[in-house]
Amino acid sequence: MNDAAAAPNTSQDSRLRERAARVIPGGMWGHQRASAVPAGYPQFFAGGDGATVRDVDGRDYIDFMCSWGPIILGHRHPEVDAVVRAQMEAGDCLNGPTEHAVRLAETLVRMIPHADWALMQKNGSDAMTTCVTLARAGTGRRKILVASGAYHGAVPWSSPSLLGVTAEDRAHLLHYTYNDAESLAAAAEAAGGDLAGIIVSAFRHDVGTPQEMPTAAFATTARALCDAAGAALIVDDVRAGFRLNLGGSWEEVGVRPDLAGYSKAIANGQPLAAVTGNDRFRPAAADAFFTGSFWYSGAPMAAAVKVLDILERENAPARLQAAGARFAEGFVAAGARHGLEVSLSGPPAMPEMHFADDRDHALAETFCLEALRRGVYLHHRHNMFLSLAHSDAVVDRAVDAMDDAFAALARSRPTST
Amino acid sequence: MNDAAAAPNTSQDSRLRERAARVIPGGMWGHQRASAVPAGYPQFFAGGDGATVRDVDGRDYIDFMCSWGPIILGHRHPEVDAVVRAQMEAGDCLNGPTEHAVRLAETLVRMIPHADWALMQKNGSDAMTTCVTLARAGTGRRKILVASGAYHGAVPWSSPSLLGVTAEDRAHLLHYTYNDAESLAAAAEAAGGDLAGIIVSAFRHDVGTPQEMPTAAFATTARALCDAAGAALIVDDVRAGFRLNLGGSWEEVGVRPDLAGYSKAIANGQPLAAVTGNDRFRPAAADAFFTGSFWYSGAPMAAAVKVLDILERENAPARLQAAGARFAEGFVAAGARHGLEVSLSGPPAMPEMHFADDRDHALAETFCLEALRRGVYLHHRHNMFLSLAHSDAVVDRAVDAMDDAFAALARSRPTST
Repeated sequence: MNDAAAAPNTSQDSRLRERAARVIPGGMWGHQRASAVPAGYPQFFAGGDGATVRDVDGRDYIDFMCSWGPIILGHRHPEVDAVVRAQMEAGDCLNGPTEHAVRLAETLVRMIPHADWALMQKNGSDAMTTCVTLARAGTGRRKILVASGAYHGAVPWSSPSLLGVTAEDRAHLLHYTYNDAESLAAAAEAAGGDLAGIIVSAFRHDVGTPQEMPTAAFATTARALCDAAGAALIVDDVRAGFRLNLGGSWEEVGVRPDLAGYSKAIANGQPLAAVTGNDRFRPAAADAFFTGSFWYSGAPMAAAVKVLDILERENAPARLQAAGARFAEGFVAAGARHGLEVSLSGPPAMPEMHFADDRDHALAETFCLEALRRGVYLHHRHNMFLSLAHSDAVVDRAVDAMDDAFAALARSRPTST
Repeated sequence: MNDAAAAPNTSQDSRLRERAARVIPGGMWGHQRASAVPAGYPQFFAGGDGATVRDVDGRDYIDFMCSWGPIILGHRHPEVDAVVRAQMEAGDCLNGPTEHAVRLAETLVRMIPHADWALMQKNGSDAMTTCVTLARAGTGRRKILVASGAYHGAVPWSSPSLLGVTAEDRAHLLHYTYNDAESLAAAAEAAGGDLAGIIVSAFRHDVGTPQEMPTAAFATTARALCDAAGAALIVDDVRAGFRLNLGGSWEEVGVRPDLAGYSKAIANGQPLAAVTGNDRFRPAAADAFFTGSFWYSGAPMAAAVKVLDILERENAPARLQAAGARFAEGFVAAGARHGLEVSLSGPPAMPEMHFADDRDHALAETFCLEALRRGVYLHHRHNMFLSLAHSDAVVDRAVDAMDDAFAALARSRPTST
């Protein structure tokens, strides 16, 4: 039972929770399921604007989740919404693709050095499943190496839940430890002549553990193992894509994959995923079958072309890094002012918070609830996301509210001398 | 090589094909891949309006594909587009679901007799994979019965292509023949105590073969086998859902499933899929993990609530059946006037065309191309779709053009006496 159920049931959020509990298993599905929403957080939202998100009871928050990644320019970006509206006014889901499919593929091929081609889908899970299928189709082999604890989609071969999953769904997966080149080499050796591909996340962003950027040794080993075996190096850039480097996140570490999957931020919230690949995997991508009823719709692809154009124009990765650095500096200093040792892991544009000696993230959770009450929407154990709408003024306003939240947290803690 | 490549390369469609060939494997992915577009057909579209679709060269067609199913009210339905616009103007993809998620689940539970709950996704493949996972999660068993040749999604366990698919992806599938109760019973017996579920398409709509409605004997056998084994009866209503019966397509044959998957027409082209289930599978649906970055977006769910409201208000299945019957009568009569024996299989709202003695659908393909030249967009070997925008006047106009197409076909045929 979620503590928030104790909130006054006169709120719109409470009323919606009650109705949802009757017609939606567990009150909501997936990562938004009612039991996963931290106590005191709203479950239902009404809208957003720039760096602000609004819940169904009309409360505004400075938003550091950005819809769990999709929002990279800010909610309701006028230029993006204009191209979406224009395509909707012509017709969105038609008997075949629009010109935007071609324009988007051309844009991805131009921006992403490893990409000779692109194809589009809906979910990040679609993109990563397609990468696995292409690695197998292109090599004629079966084994796929994945990092223990990494998330590559909510589908049987990769879901964090084993409920309803059979052993065969994962029969050809072998595991390694992220950033551990030796464990990667050992897994490749175990795969032997049946190695089809190695999947690496853009960086280690497993929920609830400190984030780690890929080391050069790990990245070059992954590339070398794939080269030696003729296997596909696959970067899962679904979560990080376009926030760290517009050429793909592993440009940061100087290693290029054969295949990569993108989704989330690619169209600022419009539903879209993409796979890019090099010419080695072009025949496989031409022959294998990937499709969906809405995979040719024009509006999301028009949005993506516009988003990528704005990200280039605005030098987005550098701006997001600067905004994240400002957020980090303010966050750590505010904590220190109130005697709380805090840190952020991972890239500044996608930080995850940590409190010293914080078993089960309990202190972080309490802090986030205090921040929420002061109009700042954070997450206590999942990486957060910044957008181009997170201006210095917005970040500073959030840091002020967080300072106040740290003060409340410090007051509420038993003194430990 | 597609014959259409021989079309004057001054057309916008040809120019887009050339550009696509460079940056998209095979020129396009999935069921829209360039090699699958019949010769002479446009590959790229610009818009649509009601029962009309427009290609990138500005040619309008009376549309009997309805975007391969999603369009059920007609392209750019003003009431639906208004609620989509309204949610977009507030914010579409937010930090959690909107109230529309609850309203849509309530609507589905009210309309669909077997449904005690609903959850929402993006692709038809998402919905059917979820049904399989829930059948396994809810029963603790593994075997799933599927009809030979049936399509349930472009994912490894079900894709029509085996490229990049491993044997393990399909390890727990057993096959039966649609409408063959004996083969179904034999497959269930082969599954023995490990039977998790039986998937049945709403009706048999395998591409390139005559469509068949489910027989009462087949449907009641499927239900009885599931009841006897404690397995889940799963209706794949992705393609047919909401066109035949607003309570689910198997209401027509008087048999209720435990789980069902929907997509295509549910939101008139907005990207959405849904799974409905009964209370027996509610605990599994609450515990298993199904999620996606855009699965909580408000606009597609707002659209679906409006679409379902309009379908009820307009008594859509009866109207679609009447429009389909008028189309069928006109089509068959026009063929006969020109000495061509033609028929339609499947439900009138989703007809598939057949020419007598038409090996490889060659005659149907030529006829469709003649119709296309006269402004009617048909398909020669896939079921077509009608919408509420297919008024008597629209259907009659299409039949007139088809009469002319039959005449051209009759003229071009070698006389066979």
